[in-house]
Amino acid sequence: MHPTLLTDQYELTMVNAALKDGTADRRCVFEVFTRRLPTGRRYGVVAGTGRLVELLRDFRFADDDIAYLRRAGIVDADTAKWLADYRFTGDIDGYPEGELFFPGSPILTVSGTFAECVVLETLVLSVLNHDCAIAAASARMVTAARGRAVIEMGSRRTHEQAAVAAARASYLAGFAYTSNLAAGQRYGIPTAGTAAHAFTLLHDDEPAAFASQVAALGKNTTLLVDTYDIAQGIRNAIAVAGPDLLAVRIDSGDLSVLAQHSRELLDSLGATETKIIVSGDLDEYAIAALAAEPVDMYGAGTAVVTGSGAPTAGLVYKLVEVDGRPVVKRSENKATVGGRKVAVRRHKPTGTATEEIVVSQGVPDHKPNDRLLQTSYVISGEPAAQPPLAAARDHLRQCLISIPWEGLKLSAGDPAIPVTVVPTS
Amino acid sequence: MHPTLLTDQYELTMVNAALKDGTADRRCVFEVFTRRLPTGRRYGVVAGTGRLVELLRDFRFADDDIAYLRRAGIVDADTAKWLADYRFTGDIDGYPEGELFFPGSPILTVSGTFAECVVLETLVLSVLNHDCAIAAASARMVTAARGRAVIEMGSRRTHEQAAVAAARASYLAGFAYTSNLAAGQRYGIPTAGTAAHAFTLLHDDEPAAFASQVAALGKNTTLLVDTYDIAQGIRNAIAVAGPDLLAVRIDSGDLSVLAQHSRELLDSLGATETKIIVSGDLDEYAIAALAAEPVDMYGAGTAVVTGSGAPTAGLVYKLVEVDGRPVVKRSENKATVGGRKVAVRRHKPTGTATEEIVVSQGVPDHKPNDRLLQTSYVISGEPAAQPPLAAARDHLRQCLISIPWEGLKLSAGDPAIPVTVVPTS
Repeated sequence: MHPTLLTDQYELTMVNAALKDGTADRRCVFEVFTRRLPTGRRYGVVAGTGRLVELLRDFRFADDDIAYLRRAGIVDADTAKWLADYRFTGDIDGYPEGELFFPGSPILTVSGTFAECVVLETLVLSVLNHDCAIAAASARMVTAARGRAVIEMGSRRTHEQAAVAAARASYLAGFAYTSNLAAGQRYGIPTAGTAAHAFTLLHDDEPAAFASQVAALGKNTTLLVDTYDIAQGIRNAIAVAGPDLLAVRIDSGDLSVLAQHSRELLDSLGATETKIIVSGDLDEYAIAALAAEPVDMYGAGTAVVTGSGAPTAGLVYKLVEVDGRPVVKRSENKATVGGRKVAVRRHKPTGTATEEIVVSQGVPDHKPNDRLLQTSYVISGEPAAQPPLAAARDHLRQCLISIPWEGLKLSAGDPAIPVTVVPTS
Repeated sequence: MHPTLLTDQYELTMVNAALKDGTADRRCVFEVFTRRLPTGRRYGVVAGTGRLVELLRDFRFADDDIAYLRRAGIVDADTAKWLADYRFTGDIDGYPEGELFFPGSPILTVSGTFAECVVLETLVLSVLNHDCAIAAASARMVTAARGRAVIEMGSRRTHEQAAVAAARASYLAGFAYTSNLAAGQRYGIPTAGTAAHAFTLLHDDEPAAFASQVAALGKNTTLLVDTYDIAQGIRNAIAVAGPDLLAVRIDSGDLSVLAQHSRELLDSLGATETKIIVSGDLDEYAIAALAAEPVDMYGAGTAVVTGSGAPTAGLVYKLVEVDGRPVVKRSENKATVGGRKVAVRRHKPTGTATEEIVVSQGVPDHKPNDRLLQTSYVISGEPAAQPPLAAARDHLRQCLISIPWEGLKLSAGDPAIPVTVVPTS
C-alpha cells in the first residue's frame, strides 16, 4: 500500500495553490527539530529514519488515491496530474538512527522544491514522533536494567502496526527481544515468548500445563508460575522440568519480595541456574527499583509502547529557507532560527560530550574532538545505503557513554548537553 | 497484508503445545474487559470492533509467514499445517461501537476452540486498546466543546497507521472532521485543512499567500492568520478575501484573549459572519476553558491521538470458561469472575442509566427499562452485518445523554455507574 494519503489534507491544498501561483517550484529547506524535550527528559533518541526511507521508496500517488482526491474536491486537474508524476527528487540529510538529540538539534533536513517537500511533512513527522518517543523511553529502561536483558512485550497495548515500529525502536534502544512476530519477520529482531495464564487455566492442573509446555518446547523454556500460588508454581515447574529449567516468569504481585523468595526456593530445589524473569507494568522506575533483587530479565510492555509518559516526541517540520533566504515564523516564545543548519557535537579529549553547535547557512569552526552529526539519507531522490539496525543500536550505546553522567539519571533534569544555534551572520 | 503476525510469539507457542497434548480443541470462552478505567475517568467508549471485524476477514496465515515461523523454530510441522488451514469458526459477541463501558463490562466475548481463539488475542487487544483510548479522550473533548465543532488534526503526532484509526475513533466520538486523508478515503469521514505557516513563509508576503489560497480554494476557506502579527493578519485576510471570508485560524498564543480581539476586529471590518477556529495543544480542559470565548471551531491534535494522558485503554483478554467450566486466575487484588457473561444496563423510567448487571453463566432478571448490551459480531466464523460508523456515533451520543450528569464532568471521579458482576450461582 502506498503511504501517500497517510497525510493531512492541507499538504495537498497547499500544493494545489502553489502550483497555480507559480511558487511550487521555489527551492525550499524544511527542518525537523523539537523546541523542548518531554518534561524532565535529558535526551531524545533518533529512531524511525530507516523506516521512513523505506516508506519513501513507495511514495507514489496511486490512481485510486488521486481519484479520491479529485472526487473529494481537494485538488484540481492540474494538481492531479502533478501528483500522478510525483517523485521526490530532492535531498534528505539527518542525524543517524541511534543518535541523541536535544532542543534545537536539526535531526532531519529535507531540501527540494516547496511542493515535493511539503507533501512529505505529515508522514515524516508521524514516523519520527512515534519512533523517537518509543526509543527514548526504551533507552531509559535499558539504562535502569544495568546490563540485564529487557524484553519488549507491549504489542497489545498499542495500535497493531505501531506495535511493530515500537518493537523496532526498543530494539534499537538496546532491548534484547520482542514478543512481536511481525517485527521478528520484518527486521530480524530476536523474538521471545512461551505461554500465558490462559495456557495453565486451559489444562486440568498446573503440572499438566507445565508438562505440555516442556514436551513441546523443551527445558530451555520459561514457565509462568503465578497463575495460582507462586511457591507451589515453582515447585511444580522444577518437579516437571527438573533443576535445569531455563527460567520462570512472575507477572504479578510485589516483584521485589517475590523475586527474593523465588530465588531462595529455586536454589533450595537445586535449580541454581534457573533464571527469574519479571513482568507486569514495569517502567524505568520500577526496573531501577529491582536492581538489587535476584532478577535476571525484565519484560516491559505498556510503558514501552506508550513512551512511558511521553507518547510523542514533539518534533516539528518547519520551513527554514526559501530560494536561499532564511525564513521564520514570528511567534512569541518560539525563538527559532531560519536557514539550513550544520550541526556538530563537541567533546572533551576524554570523549565526554560538552555541547552541540548548530550553525545556520554556514559551517561551525572546526575544533578537535568535534563530530559532524548529519549524514545522507536521500541524495537527489535516491535513497543512500543505510547502516543496519544493529549499527544504530551500537551507535546509541556509544552515544549514551559519551554524555555527562548526569544525562543518564532517570530523575527530571535539563538536557544532558546544551545546544547553541548560531544564526546566519 | 495479512494481520496474522501482528501478534505475540506466545500465542503460537501455546497453540503448538496445545495441539501436541490434545487440549487445543477444548471449547473456550475468552472475555475482553478492563479492571479499571484510566485514573479519574468516568467512562470508557467502545471503538475499534468494526475495524477488528474487517481485519479478521483477512486473518489467514500466508505461506511466507508460516515459513518464517518454521525457520525461527516457533512452531513445528503439525502446527504449521494447522496454521495453513486456519479459519476462525467460532463466535464473537460484544458491546456495539459507541457503547459506554466500565470496569468489569464484558465488551467482547470470543468463543470457540482454545487454539482458534487464542491466536486472535494480541490483535484484538491492540485494536481495542488503541481505538477505545482515543474514543474516550475524544468524547470528553466533544463534551467540553458544547456543540461547537472539533477537527481532529493529530496525525503527525502518532504512528502513521495509528493516525488513521485515531481519526476513525474520534469521528465515532463526535468530532466533525479529520485532517487525515486516508481516513477520509477508507471511512468516508469528512476531511478539513487549508494551509500551514509554511505556505505564508513561502510567499513574498502574507497578502500574496492569502491571495493565492483564495484564488485556489475560494472565499469559502480558512486563512491562517498568526504567522506574523495576528491583527495585521486578520486585516490582510479580509482585505484579500472580503468580509464574506469563511474563517480565520489562530494556532498560537493566548487563545482566549486572541479570540476576543479577533472577533472584535473581524466585526469592525464587517466580517461578522467570518468564523474563528483555534488550535494549538488543545485538550478537553483547554477546550472547556474557551467556552465563553467567541470561538466557532476547535482543532485538536496531540491530545486526541495520545488519548489525552491515557494512551491505552487497559483492556485484557482473559480465558473465562473451558468446556463449560468457569476458570479464573488466582491473583491478589484481581477478583475476577469466570464464565461467559450476559450484560444489561438498567435505567430509570426517565432513561437515566443506574447500573450495569453482568451475570456469569446465566441471564439477568428482566426489569423494565433494561437494555441488553451485547450484539453479534461474528457467528460461526461469519461476520455479521455491522451498523455504519455514523450509527456508532449516534449511539454514543445517546449513551452520553443517558448517564447521570456527574458522569460527564471532566474532573476525576468514580465510574459514572456501577457494574455488578454476579458469579455463577
